[in-house]
Amino acid sequence: MKHATEAVQYGHTVSTTLSFDNAVERVTALLKDEGFGVLCDIDVTKTMHEKLGNEFRPYRILGACNPKLAYEALSSNAQLGLLLPCNVVVQVENGQTVISAINTRALLSIASDPSLLPIADEVNARLMRVLEAVAQEATVEK
Amino acid sequence: MKHATEAVQYGHTVSTTLSFDNAVERVTALLKDEGFGVLCDIDVTKTMHEKLGNEFRPYRILGACNPKLAYEALSSNAQLGLLLPCNVVVQVENGQTVISAINTRALLSIASDPSLLPIADEVNARLMRVLEAVAQEATVEK
Repeated sequence: MKHATEAVQYGHTVSTTLSFDNAVERVTALLKDEGFGVLCDIDVTKTMHEKLGNEFRPYRILGACNPKLAYEALSSNAQLGLLLPCNVVVQVENGQTVISAINTRALLSIASDPSLLPIADEVNARLMRVLEAVAQEATVEK
Repeated sequence: MKHATEAVQYGHTVSTTLSFDNAVERVTALLKDEGFGVLCDIDVTKTMHEKLGNEFRPYRILGACNPKLAYEALSSNAQLGLLLPCNVVVQVENGQTVISAINTRALLSIASDPSLLPIADEVNARLMRVLEAVAQEATVEK
């Protein structure tokens, strides 16, 4: 399973043959298909250059939010905004475009609120579909 | 200690007598004094209204980033962008303005990377100073 998602400690990650810019564009579109808007878009490379004069590899943090699920979660846990939105990172690592999504189960482990598990699992399922879809596209592109 | 910060599971929180808007403004300025830019500013109330037509109490998520500390952290842990930026939430809860900051120690517990502890502690110390300062201002305002 070449394009299977790989679990890291607090996220899931896939490598793709898409270019960095194409990956950002496709991930944004796929998130939209799953009901997530990108409410926060941090260009780490640009920020590091502007603020520190340091070079940093292509690295983008996309803060994804599904309003319906967020509304449900915030209504039951007032402080949960501290853990939102759900991030998807697109970066170039060792010459390869790598896409990671937060594992909301891991994130939720620090909130100790079992009532949020169904929402966390729903978000995870959607984010996994995004990763699998973008990895699949890379296969087609080859 | 009326204005002491209170530990929640994954953050620290203070109540203030500042209005919601004043609190957002003062927190942003105090974050700047501690070297944090607000790279992400999510108006949850507005988003819920626009996307769902739902009413939600005043609630703002400020994603704070200290470029120097973020550079250091991201250089040693490639996936850490999944947990950035560090959020400060300003909200109205039961008629009171409440400000919370993420506890980076709790956040880091899911990354299992002890090398990041000094950075997490430095960020925590700065965020705690922001909370203490904004609570103090509220006392003066009375």
